Amino acid sequence: MKFITFRSGATTRLGVLDQGSVVDINRVLPQVPPDLRAALLAGIDLTSAARVALAQSTQADRTQLSDLEVAPLVPSPGKTICLGLNYYDHAAESGREKPVYPWFFLRCDTSLLAHGEAALLPRVSERFDYEAELAVVIGTRARHVTQEQALQHVFGYTCFNDMSVRDYQKRTPQWTIGKNFDRTGGFGPQLVTADELAPGAEGLKIQARLNGQVMQDANTTDMIWSVAETISLLSECVTLEPGDVIVMGTPAGVGQSRTPPVWMKHGDKIEIEIEKIGLLVNTIEQEV
Amino acid sequence: MKFITFRSGATTRLGVLDQGSVVDINRVLPQVPPDLRAALLAGIDLTSAARVALAQSTQADRTQLSDLEVAPLVPSPGKTICLGLNYYDHAAESGREKPVYPWFFLRCDTSLLAHGEAALLPRVSERFDYEAELAVVIGTRARHVTQEQALQHVFGYTCFNDMSVRDYQKRTPQWTIGKNFDRTGGFGPQLVTADELAPGAEGLKIQARLNGQVMQDANTTDMIWSVAETISLLSECVTLEPGDVIVMGTPAGVGQSRTPPVWMKHGDKIEIEIEKIGLLVNTIEQEV
Repeated sequence: MKFITFRSGATTRLGVLDQGSVVDINRVLPQVPPDLRAALLAGIDLTSAARVALAQSTQADRTQLSDLEVAPLVPSPGKTICLGLNYYDHAAESGREKPVYPWFFLRCDTSLLAHGEAALLPRVSERFDYEAELAVVIGTRARHVTQEQALQHVFGYTCFNDMSVRDYQKRTPQWTIGKNFDRTGGFGPQLVTADELAPGAEGLKIQARLNGQVMQDANTTDMIWSVAETISLLSECVTLEPGDVIVMGTPAGVGQSRTPPVWMKHGDKIEIEIEKIGLLVNTIEQEV
Repeated sequence: MKFITFRSGATTRLGVLDQGSVVDINRVLPQVPPDLRAALLAGIDLTSAARVALAQSTQADRTQLSDLEVAPLVPSPGKTICLGLNYYDHAAESGREKPVYPWFFLRCDTSLLAHGEAALLPRVSERFDYEAELAVVIGTRARHVTQEQALQHVFGYTCFNDMSVRDYQKRTPQWTIGKNFDRTGGFGPQLVTADELAPGAEGLKIQARLNGQVMQDANTTDMIWSVAETISLLSECVTLEPGDVIVMGTPAGVGQSRTPPVWMKHGDKIEIEIEKIGLLVNTIEQEV
């Protein structure tokens, strides 16, 4: 099943994708919260709700995906936990050994960006880079879970573009500020439920394309920490809650590691595509 | 004016402090959102609302502070941005030079802890440390503001205990995970509005006491980056929103820098006190 969050006036609504058209779940089932996190927190069986919505939908409940204004998949996650250096080749191109533990950092909601929106090339920097990543949306509460138990807490997967302001990322050893500029975290468009993919979303091609040119081209199998291991490690420390998001790190090919470096500019188009999951497209807009 | 967030069943409510008793603002003025962030986002003039609540309150609207179960001051901030190494003496005891830029990291909501609640000494570590800090609650949206403009965006100040799991903090260069364990971020109890303090809450004594013994004893004037400078720097990168929180770093005297190191243990009592702002008390509970 594929879910999407879209805008309707000042609010967002939850839809299920059906062959290029979107059924507005909240129109058919008004009792479902119109926010993916809220629905998961309320313990709604969204797959069943989506089946009902599809079965009961009329033509009026359907819209072509291309006619919708998409929102960030989870507009306000409880937390968005990101991994750095989680592909061997990217760790190597960054001059790093295989890390002994994941490099975790957090993203705040004001940094999130929807599919189709313009990412913001900040006024204070020219070093604006892309990072193709797999994102995991947690479905049920997880604390002190083993690797074997971990994947049962995943609701589904989507694409993420962990756009990074490299000079700010490196001003101090803490990367956080360079990863949290406004409108830099592309997130979506749709979520694919875990049952439609291999365990931990392994074996999927992942690409970043800048103005049509392939810049990153890898496979999720090359991640150093798998989704299951990451959830298990995190759950030693924090309670993962429904609607929390884990962003799994990027493979080699980022702009900063190229000779000469490649930085995104006003008018560029950046695409993140993960096989069987989706295509996330953003343009770049210079902040004025 | 002094505000407090307290629990009432499964929800929280907003109160104004008046000589040791608390007036339930939401009981007198049901139209005020019972959440500090929501009220600030809605643009409510909380100082006026509190004046009205005080004037119209009956004895039934008042409770002794000691009879209330306090909640984290902002239970779910839009973002909680923390500074590392923001006092000269603490940077020195940590073997660091004066940083060239603030070391920013984020805290997630599941790490926040109310005054009076037990902080969680995690199962996976024994290196559990305290950090006395000044916290700033943003009142109005700030983006690209100068130092001179910055303080007009502050609603008020409170105490924070940025409790840190030191071995996890240092497993990689990213401190984030060691700063985000469940129930480690003491936050409150009350907010003091900015008009009651010197600009930027400068000139205030700040202490941490462990089982009554003074461990940190400094003054907010010793911060490397002032509140105004921090807000201005942050606003180059991110939009600060009403209800966002900035946690201003800790002075010298933390447990890890002592010889031998001092780690908090089950049953310990840790107090953070900031002159004119308040006293934040937590006990330590071993996770089982």
